[in-house]
Amino acid sequence: MSNAELTVSSPLKRFRELTGQIKQYEEILGLVYWDMRTGAPRKGVEQRSEAVGALSAETFKLSTSEEMGELLQQLNKPEQLAELGEIDRRLVEETTKDYERNRRIPPDMYREYVVLTSQSESAWEEAKANDDFANFVPYLEKIIDFNRKFIELWGVKTTPYDTLLDMYEPGLTTEELDRLFGELRARLVPLAEQIASSGNRPDTSFLVGEFAKEAQKKFSNLILKEMGYDFEAGRLDESVHPFATGLNKNDVRITTRYLPDDLTSALFGTIHECGHALYEQNIKDELATTPLCTGTSMGIHESQSRLWENMVGRSFGFWSQYLPALKAHFPGQLDDVSTEAFYRGINVVEPSLIRIEADELTYNLHIMIRYEIEKMLFNEGLNPRDLPEVWNRKYEEALGVTPPSNAQGVLQDVHWSGGAFGYFPSYSLGNMYAAQIMDIARQEIPDLDDQIASGQLLPLKDWLTDKVYQYGKLQRPAEIIERISGKPLQSSYLCDYLENKYRDIYRLE
Amino acid sequence: MSNAELTVSSPLKRFRELTGQIKQYEEILGLVYWDMRTGAPRKGVEQRSEAVGALSAETFKLSTSEEMGELLQQLNKPEQLAELGEIDRRLVEETTKDYERNRRIPPDMYREYVVLTSQSESAWEEAKANDDFANFVPYLEKIIDFNRKFIELWGVKTTPYDTLLDMYEPGLTTEELDRLFGELRARLVPLAEQIASSGNRPDTSFLVGEFAKEAQKKFSNLILKEMGYDFEAGRLDESVHPFATGLNKNDVRITTRYLPDDLTSALFGTIHECGHALYEQNIKDELATTPLCTGTSMGIHESQSRLWENMVGRSFGFWSQYLPALKAHFPGQLDDVSTEAFYRGINVVEPSLIRIEADELTYNLHIMIRYEIEKMLFNEGLNPRDLPEVWNRKYEEALGVTPPSNAQGVLQDVHWSGGAFGYFPSYSLGNMYAAQIMDIARQEIPDLDDQIASGQLLPLKDWLTDKVYQYGKLQRPAEIIERISGKPLQSSYLCDYLENKYRDIYRLE
Repeated sequence: MSNAELTVSSPLKRFRELTGQIKQYEEILGLVYWDMRTGAPRKGVEQRSEAVGALSAETFKLSTSEEMGELLQQLNKPEQLAELGEIDRRLVEETTKDYERNRRIPPDMYREYVVLTSQSESAWEEAKANDDFANFVPYLEKIIDFNRKFIELWGVKTTPYDTLLDMYEPGLTTEELDRLFGELRARLVPLAEQIASSGNRPDTSFLVGEFAKEAQKKFSNLILKEMGYDFEAGRLDESVHPFATGLNKNDVRITTRYLPDDLTSALFGTIHECGHALYEQNIKDELATTPLCTGTSMGIHESQSRLWENMVGRSFGFWSQYLPALKAHFPGQLDDVSTEAFYRGINVVEPSLIRIEADELTYNLHIMIRYEIEKMLFNEGLNPRDLPEVWNRKYEEALGVTPPSNAQGVLQDVHWSGGAFGYFPSYSLGNMYAAQIMDIARQEIPDLDDQIASGQLLPLKDWLTDKVYQYGKLQRPAEIIERISGKPLQSSYLCDYLENKYRDIYRLE
Repeated sequence: MSNAELTVSSPLKRFRELTGQIKQYEEILGLVYWDMRTGAPRKGVEQRSEAVGALSAETFKLSTSEEMGELLQQLNKPEQLAELGEIDRRLVEETTKDYERNRRIPPDMYREYVVLTSQSESAWEEAKANDDFANFVPYLEKIIDFNRKFIELWGVKTTPYDTLLDMYEPGLTTEELDRLFGELRARLVPLAEQIASSGNRPDTSFLVGEFAKEAQKKFSNLILKEMGYDFEAGRLDESVHPFATGLNKNDVRITTRYLPDDLTSALFGTIHECGHALYEQNIKDELATTPLCTGTSMGIHESQSRLWENMVGRSFGFWSQYLPALKAHFPGQLDDVSTEAFYRGINVVEPSLIRIEADELTYNLHIMIRYEIEKMLFNEGLNPRDLPEVWNRKYEEALGVTPPSNAQGVLQDVHWSGGAFGYFPSYSLGNMYAAQIMDIARQEIPDLDDQIASGQLLPLKDWLTDKVYQYGKLQRPAEIIERISGKPLQSSYLCDYLENKYRDIYRLE
């Protein structure tokens, strides 16, 4: 033990204990949420929500305690900070940020909010199933009210919505997002128009039919294995809304949803969630028991899910390798489908109603709509009761489609029911990060495309572990993308990638 | 609000909050344990165990806090106690008992013990699978050492083992158990000998074969429905060692284990666990958020599982109703089996190695062996390393069988790996309680046997709800059995029941 370590050992030791305990409670809460979404009995949810509220409140109390405040004050002294190792320094920084944000929220208010969002998710599920926005809107109003109050307590950054954005993508502003989305729109909308008028719509008829759930499950499991998902450190379940959750780095669970008449929904959902899971399973061991053992931001997290789902899973090479196995899982159903036809079919571009089923190109338009609506809610005072109308109008304008029901419209996503306002932009950020990272991967692994085309997915996983996964929250999003690519996040990589891909698929000039 | 309520409202309110929080944390811990046993990924268990240790320690801290001590002191004043309602009075009593017991255990010692038992359960599972007692014994030694220390800290009641017994069956002593087991032995051993020499062994060949798991599952679900198990307040899963767990009264989960070559193992396991679950699902709503919302003792809990499993599930009437449905689930496999033959087959009496597969009669001998061994461990200093030898000798003496492996011997049960010493006697107590309760049920519901024989199981469930379930922990075991039968627990009901049943099945004089 060095002198430096001796000097700070006592407050540091206690700080590590306290943050470790927070991490442990978060692990347990994560398990409760996983359970609620994968099959907890309906009648038990109300009391479970209260229990979640109690434990969340305790976790919140730990993160805002006097003791935590004193430890942070001591550890943040420049002479102390200078003596900390990289991990502890970053841990102090992140914990200080949480502390300062959380201290502004009265504990009772926080607890009430947790119980509300936990009940609200169940209410959303029912509302979606019954196409019943009216029954859900009281929850939504309360959740939005809470968030408006949180913003006031935290302090408005430029605009109220900026305060929310910063939660999911530290440092991100509406100004930068407006610019990035503007650039995307300028290049992607014309591309979508060219595609629509090309007359070269791929055949997709073979993707619809009766696809036995058991065979879908088996094939999903096969692909997970190929991607290097560690089944001894995770499991695959079913839920209405697919998700991945890293309880600890050796227990990273994913869910999917098998549609009996759709070949690809569960499959690409599984690959997407596995991308999230690979990130969490491969964080370095030194971070395992700390709150840094998670993705660094929602945007970087989404970049990993979307890189695997789209840039690998929807590539020609991938299917030149795996189409024969897919055919073997559904004998007689895909016999006549060539790799080319399959590749084109799964990449059809079409304005649609449902975000999670959207193609890679129009997906970003779905995100922009949500981004604009969230800005309206928090910066312009939009009344939540008017959401269906605004939603449907924006879909008509941006995509030329009108939801026939709220279930297929404003009720389609779980996020708002859990209070996750400011989260949606992460998906498009993820697309941009992913394209930028994949561009570098292709430079640094010269035969990457050949590897994918021969079913060697592990070298890419290892490269991503080296460049992204291992760091968890140890580095900020901007640091990661700069270190990998030597540049800040840019929209051009995604636009270039999409233009190249779709020019080829749609045989554009 | 009455004056009385006003007087005590402030400490009572806080006491209710605190005990409510303990109940909430126990609910969450219960879910974590359920998850560990039903499919949590192997690699994540170590870190999860630490998290369980942290939350258990927090729960322990709440139950032993200065604040709790002060509240209990106030509420235990005779003038305060007199003003409390029935529920609060009993809550104060139970909480005081826990407080006084827990205060004697140093918190760090408790936490270490929780982590140990949590890891030890996984070690036991592996040891059992690999028939490797040597790898498990270090855990067992530590757990026994901890329990020996706990006993010292709690204070020895007559003998050290009495201190443990009291945990599971409040008030029970080795003296009384020695007497009860002596009475059972005196009547049941001669009965078992008569059976063995009768030459009338029932045919059991039809119970062995290939029984499709899916059909077993379907039939188990059918019986659960018939018994009135509420699937919206519970779920059925699989685990190595079947169990029931009441997380809250609206989330009571059961597990079973399907053996592909055994028709009845999963079935009777399911009925058994459902008996536990019916108890927990039907506790009155007023107790729902309190620590009184659970079974009053392990003995009473087991009485409910064993009443349903044996006195209902292994009765002639039950199968005169359900055998046709069972046959329909396994077409062609049981066509020639009459109700009489089936009834006799599932009630074959045979000395065997595995407790959970034992018949109703010799089952009690399995329990006595464990009871004697536990007494040796805690009252006579038996070395845990000598357990296999002692175990095998006792099986040879009492049942005439010698385990060919430790997996089928001393490693067969999960209990000791979790530190549950003093629990096993509950099973035989359960048999005795069950026989005594069922005797009264038959008097108070005159056509009970006809009801069962016509598939009307709900009147019995309702009667048990009225007499037992609704009270949860509101009444003590002795109060319950006295209220129902006008007598304390007696061994004669069980002996009479078994003699009648087996005289008929084995056609004894």
